[in-house]
Amino acid sequence: MQEVNVAIVGFGTVGTGVARILLTKKKELAERCGLMLNLTHVVDIDIKRKRGLALPRGILTTDIEAVYRDESVPVVVETVGGTTTADRIFKKLLRSGKNVVTANKALLATKGEPLFRLAAKKNLSIGFEASVCGGIPIIGALKEGFIANDILSFMGIVNGTCNYVLTKMMDENIPYKAALKEAQQMGYAEKQPALDVNGTDSAHKLAILARLAFGRYFDFSAVHTEGIDGIDFQDLVYARELGYAVKLLAIGKNHPSALELRVQPTLIPLSHPLASVDGVFNAISLEADYAGHCMLYGKGAGERPTASAIVADLVDVVSGRTLISLKRMKAFTGEARKARMRGIDDIESCYYLRFSVLDKPGVLGRISTVLGRHGISILSVIQKELRRKGPVPVVIMTHLATERNVRAALKTIDKFRVAKASTVCLRVEMRGESL
Amino acid sequence: MQEVNVAIVGFGTVGTGVARILLTKKKELAERCGLMLNLTHVVDIDIKRKRGLALPRGILTTDIEAVYRDESVPVVVETVGGTTTADRIFKKLLRSGKNVVTANKALLATKGEPLFRLAAKKNLSIGFEASVCGGIPIIGALKEGFIANDILSFMGIVNGTCNYVLTKMMDENIPYKAALKEAQQMGYAEKQPALDVNGTDSAHKLAILARLAFGRYFDFSAVHTEGIDGIDFQDLVYARELGYAVKLLAIGKNHPSALELRVQPTLIPLSHPLASVDGVFNAISLEADYAGHCMLYGKGAGERPTASAIVADLVDVVSGRTLISLKRMKAFTGEARKARMRGIDDIESCYYLRFSVLDKPGVLGRISTVLGRHGISILSVIQKELRRKGPVPVVIMTHLATERNVRAALKTIDKFRVAKASTVCLRVEMRGESL
Repeated sequence: MQEVNVAIVGFGTVGTGVARILLTKKKELAERCGLMLNLTHVVDIDIKRKRGLALPRGILTTDIEAVYRDESVPVVVETVGGTTTADRIFKKLLRSGKNVVTANKALLATKGEPLFRLAAKKNLSIGFEASVCGGIPIIGALKEGFIANDILSFMGIVNGTCNYVLTKMMDENIPYKAALKEAQQMGYAEKQPALDVNGTDSAHKLAILARLAFGRYFDFSAVHTEGIDGIDFQDLVYARELGYAVKLLAIGKNHPSALELRVQPTLIPLSHPLASVDGVFNAISLEADYAGHCMLYGKGAGERPTASAIVADLVDVVSGRTLISLKRMKAFTGEARKARMRGIDDIESCYYLRFSVLDKPGVLGRISTVLGRHGISILSVIQKELRRKGPVPVVIMTHLATERNVRAALKTIDKFRVAKASTVCLRVEMRGESL
Repeated sequence: MQEVNVAIVGFGTVGTGVARILLTKKKELAERCGLMLNLTHVVDIDIKRKRGLALPRGILTTDIEAVYRDESVPVVVETVGGTTTADRIFKKLLRSGKNVVTANKALLATKGEPLFRLAAKKNLSIGFEASVCGGIPIIGALKEGFIANDILSFMGIVNGTCNYVLTKMMDENIPYKAALKEAQQMGYAEKQPALDVNGTDSAHKLAILARLAFGRYFDFSAVHTEGIDGIDFQDLVYARELGYAVKLLAIGKNHPSALELRVQPTLIPLSHPLASVDGVFNAISLEADYAGHCMLYGKGAGERPTASAIVADLVDVVSGRTLISLKRMKAFTGEARKARMRGIDDIESCYYLRFSVLDKPGVLGRISTVLGRHGISILSVIQKELRRKGPVPVVIMTHLATERNVRAALKTIDKFRVAKASTVCLRVEMRGESL
């Protein structure tokens, strides 16, 4: 049986999970795939901290140079994280002739191009199934399963922290801050959760998915990104009343003339399969010309799901399967056509608008007049008899409109003397069963 | 660029879809995967019928021998269907040195072993992603994406006809026969729908999934199979009232001592992601030790989703990726350990029981006494004041019990003089969010 030495660089949560599989499932894996994966190096700056996993003597080291030098190691798992040290290590690994398997979505999304170029030049593989929703084999599906399809569009819940917070807010009737705190206590959100809650992590994953799905190259900065940190609990309640769930969606649409890529809190009908994806679960829903509507659902993060994806990549990289697929992934090396991007002002969507206005006669009429003047037609209205002083909420759902027109209309309406706060504006994906 | 000749044997719905992709997407596919797939032969007995697709001159033929003989064709798509002619053709293709891509679940489930053996002997590939839920890349996920995992169990809605019929019954308050008729009118059910509605088609897919998921060999006859043809509309209504949906599930469980494989109409909680898989959609929900709970959802059948899977297989077979994976799929060649199977009497499940009894004092007491004597404890009861003569329904949900005990109890109860019909007995999978 073929024996293959494997090194892990970065002994954090994910690195520990990978080591755990390689050590405890060695024989099973060998039986399943005809490869004996030998864990030979685990590198970390900190080799004192307990990880709850006993490594064989002599494996754990701070000496990364030993990995670069060791010619008996053809493949390295990079779980360092971040985009500076990891980038340096990644390049040095490739230059040393190592295939690399990674979960580092930030690195691939923002600095992936030179890495894939370098790998191609050296005939090496990069495995990155773990970079997007570890427990969901979406990268493999896009690289192989859907190869015959034009992917028309996709929408994903790709950040478990945000989805947990939104689910908690809704289930327990609590505001954003309280839900985030609970997520932190449960270990589902980090102490510094900015990259999750401001949408950046979702945007990284969106960029990777979009390159694979649409086969075109673009700069990461072209992804329009909003988070859940501005979400108000009452909008979740109104949305539910209207028959919608609010989810942080990573949306990719392949228009004939341009790509539309954006991360935004979005209303989707409760009948859409994504609407019932709750808690830390992730899911990606896509529309393909031949396969039709498809959804993949599972755990996106955590030690075990991420390690599962990394070990699958190890097997594919070592057996040569990854290299065969990589040759067609020009979208990462800039050889593909550069995509024209649709700017956020040009997107078309339905809208959820919540106005905060004084309850004076004629207000609703004035609002709808302005909307109408900008070509925005109203689908439904919620205005409740609140019998209170101060501003009252007026919720309007619109038919399809362009972002530019909606923003222009809101600019006018928010200047009304009766308008007491900026209008809340969320996008709505109307279609239920499919995209 | 590598050019590869492809033949299609069987010019029915699926064959037409494959030809359509190969003809209309030739350039796109070549760009995506570096392979130019040339359709050189389309073989069928009937070359007169219109398929709504214009083939290039000289491709359509009744002469299958030309395919066996043509050494320039390394891969053939078999879409003949059935298990006799298809089996003969399949073997002859392999003996002629052709790799084969198929959607034929019946053939692989019941007579797959000699085919995989023969392919292995001749170093040829068999691609069968299209054999289970065409639009869902589940075969690839089990062969590759979840390779690091022990699959603990899975449950699938794998027959679109049955799911459409059950959904229609529920949505439109109509009995089984009316829903089936509607499915036939819509083209979702065949004129001879027996293999679909009696569960056989689901059992074929279950057998293929179970071999891949559990890596063990077993005879197809060991799969316990029930269909939806005995389903009574009122049981769907009671189930809904209790918070459950009724789905025809293909269930595979990997117990330490034995495999449990069965196809049965089953109650699942409305909170389970499978419960909202409606109409012709399919889904497979699985529980893996590292990836956790995962679900893949999409279209299971039809020209376009099935063709999508076949073309993905063509690319993988030709590029050599399939052969790499096939080497580890011993479960199909009988080299794997033969599985011990759990007989249906030994399964453990929760139960939905609907008794038809005369509304006399003490009846419920007598029923629960018999259940208790067989170690079956009651979770909930629905007994409505019906104020009518003749038998009334009493619905009981039980805690976990063995099938043997339930059957013994029902044998006694059904002999009560107040019992006016055989008790309806359906299995219940209790867990919501995950298996």
